[in-house]
Amino acid sequence: MASDKPSHRFDPNFTDQVVNGMGPNTTPRNRQVLGALIRHIHDFAREVELTIDEWMEGVKFINALGEIYVKSNKTRNEAHRICDVIGLESLVDEIAHKIVSESGMDPTSSSILGPFWSPNAPFREMGDVIFQDGVPAGGRVVKMHGVIRDITTGQPIPNAVFDIWQASANGKYDFQDPENQTPNNLRGKFRANAEGRYWFYCLHPTAYSLPRDGPSWQLLTLMDRHPMRPAHIHIMVTHPDFQGCTTQLYPSDDPWIKSDTVFAVKDDLVVDFKPIQGDDKAVLELEYNVNLAPKGYKGKL
Amino acid sequence: MASDKPSHRFDPNFTDQVVNGMGPNTTPRNRQVLGALIRHIHDFAREVELTIDEWMEGVKFINALGEIYVKSNKTRNEAHRICDVIGLESLVDEIAHKIVSESGMDPTSSSILGPFWSPNAPFREMGDVIFQDGVPAGGRVVKMHGVIRDITTGQPIPNAVFDIWQASANGKYDFQDPENQTPNNLRGKFRANAEGRYWFYCLHPTAYSLPRDGPSWQLLTLMDRHPMRPAHIHIMVTHPDFQGCTTQLYPSDDPWIKSDTVFAVKDDLVVDFKPIQGDDKAVLELEYNVNLAPKGYKGKL
Repeated sequence: MASDKPSHRFDPNFTDQVVNGMGPNTTPRNRQVLGALIRHIHDFAREVELTIDEWMEGVKFINALGEIYVKSNKTRNEAHRICDVIGLESLVDEIAHKIVSESGMDPTSSSILGPFWSPNAPFREMGDVIFQDGVPAGGRVVKMHGVIRDITTGQPIPNAVFDIWQASANGKYDFQDPENQTPNNLRGKFRANAEGRYWFYCLHPTAYSLPRDGPSWQLLTLMDRHPMRPAHIHIMVTHPDFQGCTTQLYPSDDPWIKSDTVFAVKDDLVVDFKPIQGDDKAVLELEYNVNLAPKGYKGKL
Repeated sequence: MASDKPSHRFDPNFTDQVVNGMGPNTTPRNRQVLGALIRHIHDFAREVELTIDEWMEGVKFINALGEIYVKSNKTRNEAHRICDVIGLESLVDEIAHKIVSESGMDPTSSSILGPFWSPNAPFREMGDVIFQDGVPAGGRVVKMHGVIRDITTGQPIPNAVFDIWQASANGKYDFQDPENQTPNNLRGKFRANAEGRYWFYCLHPTAYSLPRDGPSWQLLTLMDRHPMRPAHIHIMVTHPDFQGCTTQLYPSDDPWIKSDTVFAVKDDLVVDFKPIQGDDKAVLELEYNVNLAPKGYKGKL
């Protein structure tokens, strides 16, 4: 953005001096990324005439991010959450996954990973429940099912891994809620069958607030913004021959869907949960088919 | 900086959506600063097409800054040091202190505070030594003296506080070097006399390396840069009626003066240490006069 501030008051050579301080053995990519980062940070400081006190508040803020990370035994990644609150994770996700197919079948839109994915989720049997601690108060059981397909052929992809994680009916994930949930509650991986199908039982998702303490809450308060995320289910679908898809699904009737505080909602990720017939284990069903692009597939740029 | 990347591939409304998410109760200054920060971070990400892995490295880096801060019991402020390594503290300092006087006498240039200032430095008697632990091996004693003056009148400023801190001959400050130095070694405050004069004994400063471990060393390595600061003495001169001056003084013969790794050298801060005559407590002297602007004085913009 152009600035009408008198930034020419300041030494016009200073930023070049810093960027050109990089030595000959910097990799081209590091030179590009770090050079652009330094230029944008300097331009920002000149544009707003950042004060020393404001800059020092920024340093304190950065230290507070790491402090909460250490003190929470690395379960509370506020540095990650701050990136979500300013839309950076959503933007980086868009940059990484902008594919428009040539076949008319688009890959499922990606959305942000967020700070709650776990590498330790267990494989479960197809058709199993992921609420290993039982159905919580207020929880509504959903049978979720669908087919995973190749966008270039429309054919099913056998053996893809479908990883799901979600907050409980109180809006908390397992590691935020050790009094009520055992590790890996409401998490699970399922291996799609020979017809590319998956099915299991989960909960209708619940809208929740980002934590109302700590650095991200401080930033939201400075920006006069609400801390709510619409209800959502996280999924990550992977297969060795396909580009994986990490995304989130949102109930179409959620009140926060137009103002998600981490800017992660996309139109094709908004879904309808429907009353189920003939299954006494669930009250709702969600059919969701996932479309993957083969590895190396670029589509139309 | 203009970019020739096809950034139009990405949603052109996304950044506005994030910035305009700020509510009506954001202060105008917060709206300006946070809005510009979000725009520059998004522009940076689009310009270099930041990858998810690179962004995640950034999140880990931020967490590492706070981690070392907590684990060092807050004595090692790598978030502050990173700002120095990318020239941000020096730039913010320039923005804050750009004053060109109308009287022909300019205020002493400021320079960065750095992470080693302490609010706990003791007042010492005028003419005292600041090397309370004695002269270290290789240390050369300097008699430092001068006058503190008002730039608008040229008259001395009685009772100004002259705060000095410096590394020892091994290149380490007291709190980096508890085996060899007691707290407040090579620190001290002196109150100028009725003629605005100050004098005391310190050491000729020693060039030193930023720490060769931790996040700032990691960043310097990525940029293929050396970690050296030229030898310097830190001073902070304050008085209730004047704009304080925080700065650093550099010996003119220092080999790192043209490539200071924190970009803090300015021409009028380069000084000559001279052999001293008739004082058997020192081998060198440094005369340095400090010029302060009254509070509220803006000068020519």
